[in-house]
Amino acid sequence: MTKTNFTITVLPGDGIGHEITEICLDLLNQVVSKVGGNQLEFTSFAAGAAHYKETGISLPEEAMQHAFNSDATLLACMGLPSIRYPDGREIAPQLELREKMDLFAGVRPVKTMPGLPLPLTSDAAKNLDFVLIRESTEGLFASRETFKIEGEGESAAAYDTQKISYQGCKRVFDFAFGLAKQRKQQGYQGKVTCVDKANVLGSFYFMRQVFDERAKNHTDITAEHIYVDAAALQLVAKPWQFDVLVTENMFGDILSDLGAGLMGGMGMAPSADIGFEKAVFQPCHGTAPDIIGQGKANPTAMFLSGAMMLDWLGHQHNNVQLIKAANLVNKAVENAYASEELLPYELGGNSGTKAITDKVFAELAKL
Amino acid sequence: MTKTNFTITVLPGDGIGHEITEICLDLLNQVVSKVGGNQLEFTSFAAGAAHYKETGISLPEEAMQHAFNSDATLLACMGLPSIRYPDGREIAPQLELREKMDLFAGVRPVKTMPGLPLPLTSDAAKNLDFVLIRESTEGLFASRETFKIEGEGESAAAYDTQKISYQGCKRVFDFAFGLAKQRKQQGYQGKVTCVDKANVLGSFYFMRQVFDERAKNHTDITAEHIYVDAAALQLVAKPWQFDVLVTENMFGDILSDLGAGLMGGMGMAPSADIGFEKAVFQPCHGTAPDIIGQGKANPTAMFLSGAMMLDWLGHQHNNVQLIKAANLVNKAVENAYASEELLPYELGGNSGTKAITDKVFAELAKL
Ligand SMILES: CC(C)[C@H](C(=O)O)[C@@H](O)C(=O)O
Ligand SMILES: CC(C)[C@H](C(=O)O)[C@@H](O)C(=O)O
Repeated sequence: MTKTNFTITVLPGDGIGHEITEICLDLLNQVVSKVGGNQLEFTSFAAGAAHYKETGISLPEEAMQHAFNSDATLLACMGLPSIRYPDGREIAPQLELREKMDLFAGVRPVKTMPGLPLPLTSDAAKNLDFVLIRESTEGLFASRETFKIEGEGESAAAYDTQKISYQGCKRVFDFAFGLAKQRKQQGYQGKVTCVDKANVLGSFYFMRQVFDERAKNHTDITAEHIYVDAAALQLVAKPWQFDVLVTENMFGDILSDLGAGLMGGMGMAPSADIGFEKAVFQPCHGTAPDIIGQGKANPTAMFLSGAMMLDWLGHQHNNVQLIKAANLVNKAVENAYASEELLPYELGGNSGTKAITDKVFAELAKL
Repeated sequence: MTKTNFTITVLPGDGIGHEITEICLDLLNQVVSKVGGNQLEFTSFAAGAAHYKETGISLPEEAMQHAFNSDATLLACMGLPSIRYPDGREIAPQLELREKMDLFAGVRPVKTMPGLPLPLTSDAAKNLDFVLIRESTEGLFASRETFKIEGEGESAAAYDTQKISYQGCKRVFDFAFGLAKQRKQQGYQGKVTCVDKANVLGSFYFMRQVFDERAKNHTDITAEHIYVDAAALQLVAKPWQFDVLVTENMFGDILSDLGAGLMGGMGMAPSADIGFEKAVFQPCHGTAPDIIGQGKANPTAMFLSGAMMLDWLGHQHNNVQLIKAANLVNKAVENAYASEELLPYELGGNSGTKAITDKVFAELAKL
């Protein structure tokens, strides 16, 4: 019997998170009831920088437990520049979620919307559609609570250690090949490009060897390497050459923001952090303290993250209605932008949260 | 008495290095004799991957000694994909030069040429003119000969450690502020942006603190921070906002290639690795094994690197003729492209080494 009742942990977080969460839940409820047969049950928890300031805790145990037991987690955005842990680091419980729930595959699609002004000149860059997979449990980020300082004052030096493990590589590379396979059936290239710096650093040379080993199990998929510097250049020069990219945590952080830039900014960029059984879905943008309460927040990335959640739930539970619902959200957003009636604030327009939301709902109603 | 005789170590390196070195030396001789009063004396040494294959040594002691004793070093490009050190790393003696000669400031100008097709749509992106400073003696690269593997087989993990020292930060930040000051006199913004990931990693938080400390000595210059992911996005979205950027070695490697992308590729991107007294000048591109001997190599980045060398020598020795000579090379290259008669192969055109060289010499003759 197919599962039809899904419990979702919701973390609106900080800043504009509150302005985009409710409408996203509305949209998800609407589309799920439109395709029929399923029910989403949302439970929200306070977490993030403001919550840390109030309580001394950034991610309450109760929220974490709920996330562990629910079918998926939807997170808006967290962190506020003025509120920090005592050691200066940002309040970013999304990192803890990734690590504690072992969400090793940070999925960051780069898909351009028709009708939006885009940064790249080339015609081919108007229809980008590739996915960057950011390993999200190790790499340089593994050091974030264990970094050390040696010496003092003018002779001090700080050290962070990057960890790249066989197991960490294996699972994320297999994920990338699996995704490329799934995409190939939909007509994409069927190619995975591993981004590293194997020419200089031993840990990346190690990573590349694991990649080559895993590639042997996926001979129907083209396996390629690129150095991270060349990748940054190619993402500007010929980004349409890519299908699935996979890389280390820190590199993935950098390159996925570059990718978001190609889509017109963080307001357009959804993401998913996926493990073997658990997943967190989240727009790539931050909490945008400068526009809080002004109605300017762009909900697009949040909507698209919601769609990624439906799609993942659908595949996870073999539930075709949810996959259909995900496609409908994507289509509604695409049509909304294709109308050329929308231009978000951050791209120089004046379509705010309400305008974008109304248009997306209107397009959804037509589907 | 001003110095007028300069000895230059020349390392043509591998691949297309041989095709762009001689003509660059010709150009430098020509422009120096044009402004008068100075003499350059070039001495070339074999070094790089091919030399390693022949002799087992990638950078001969004799070449290194000459570089230490000469006034400056001009390097074309090194490394060949098929020739590696036994541990798999690339043959890249330029890294050894940077470390052994303590060339801490990797200067990577991002200056667009008029008349070239460029990747970004925006008009403002047609006239980019900023400089990225890549710390070049520590950071993640510090680990390149000391990385370690723990465990074996499926339980193996590889580690590379990033080192960020007070002294390493201090000198490169002071260099960046000095450059911003010099540029401010020429009408630029007078701003230094430090690129880090201080919100997550302790070593970057440390780096940021040193940056803030050094900034206090340069109150006429605006000091800013940006996270590396945001920097990657902004380099695509609004790169014209930057004046001088300064960052860690690995980040600098990535972002400077992104910057080269904005200029139309590596064939257009010069660089300098500068220490307190020594400096190496080098185009950013690689050895391009795929086009060796076909006359397609773009010599522009090499010419511009030569100009950076003249400019640095001029400032270093208070020699106005050399600064003038540098400006003439830059102007000749700019005029060559402004003519819109040139389109390098890698940008889809068919202007090869000879066409570009001839045009630059012709433009120089007119100045
Ligand atoms: C907020 C920050 C800690 C986070 C990260 O670096 O992972 C963000 O940039 C992201 O990409 O999700
Ligand atoms: C060839 C390579 C080792 C080198 C580096 O990574 O520093 C190159 O990419 C550069 O930017 O100079």
